[in-house]
Amino acid sequence: MKLYLVAVSGNSYKVRILLSLLKVPHELVFVDTRNKAHKKQPFLSLNPRGEVPVLEDDGVVLWDSAAILVYLARKHGGEQWLPDAPGPMAQVMQWVALAGNEIQFGLQYARRGVLQDRWTAGTLEQGQAMARVALNALELRLADHAWLALDRPTIADIACFPYVETAPEARVPLDPYPAIQAWLARCKALPGWAERRM
Amino acid sequence: MKLYLVAVSGNSYKVRILLSLLKVPHELVFVDTRNKAHKKQPFLSLNPRGEVPVLEDDGVVLWDSAAILVYLARKHGGEQWLPDAPGPMAQVMQWVALAGNEIQFGLQYARRGVLQDRWTAGTLEQGQAMARVALNALELRLADHAWLALDRPTIADIACFPYVETAPEARVPLDPYPAIQAWLARCKALPGWAERRM
Repeated sequence: MKLYLVAVSGNSYKVRILLSLLKVPHELVFVDTRNKAHKKQPFLSLNPRGEVPVLEDDGVVLWDSAAILVYLARKHGGEQWLPDAPGPMAQVMQWVALAGNEIQFGLQYARRGVLQDRWTAGTLEQGQAMARVALNALELRLADHAWLALDRPTIADIACFPYVETAPEARVPLDPYPAIQAWLARCKALPGWAERRM
Repeated sequence: MKLYLVAVSGNSYKVRILLSLLKVPHELVFVDTRNKAHKKQPFLSLNPRGEVPVLEDDGVVLWDSAAILVYLARKHGGEQWLPDAPGPMAQVMQWVALAGNEIQFGLQYARRGVLQDRWTAGTLEQGQAMARVALNALELRLADHAWLALDRPTIADIACFPYVETAPEARVPLDPYPAIQAWLARCKALPGWAERRM
């Protein structure tokens, strides 16, 4: 199994967290995005979208972090990280969708804008406004639940973690969100949780 | 089963398509978004994100269109619309993720901007650029496959359909994408495919 990634990418980090929690052997292939390797061949043949992460396993190629989490959870995680029953599965996928939507286009884009001065989907203020929609939904849920989707950690928590943790880098302080802060700490305390790479 | 929706919303339309294909009895509850009912109570208690669609069924409340598609497909669709095996399930979810990501923030936001002159996530040009990333990925896949994820229609096709069909309303002509145009026609020809509401 090969994971194509970029060290600083939160979407790549999601996959590393789950690989580490599930103890799945894998090879890391770092993509040279500074030289735009992700926008050129041969990478574009793996992923027409031109982004990391990409997972290659046994002839299966997946180019979306949410899909990779689904794949690994169902292949190596039994019922724990993505259960099979329609209600619980959909509850998990709802937060995974939030991670690809408001969290991606709020927190991730604003962070990239601040760090790289590159604005491709709105201004800092627009990103921060969208980020707050996501953070308010998380805070409301976590005010009286330990985990996002179910009564245990799932890929919902993994998908939301990376760009929520780096919210301050998108100039969105987490002080107004005590339940989120406690949840971030709970995630990091899970046995096998992967370290962020810089 | 209650579906809270807005007639013009493509994300609501996705759910209506699957409900119709699966012939699941349901009640439609139209949300008065012109008077901002989706940003006020009691709607915010159903969905802290403040968006349509929302599905309520047997005590389950889901506020994301991708999650609702997963729920209905697994509950009422057997293996057809979202299979259980890790590889095929992830292949489906990859396109569902694209629908919530580049299609949503490219085609949907640009269309809303054009129709309502409201720009909350970048300019028309930024939306169109992101839209083209998505459309190129779709065209490449559909050039030699009838359907997006597998060898039959799945929720991947349903999730991508609504805002790809309305691409011209986002001022993104579909002429350069003949495979996408043929796929749109194949989708609409499926028995039970729901009509768009205006």
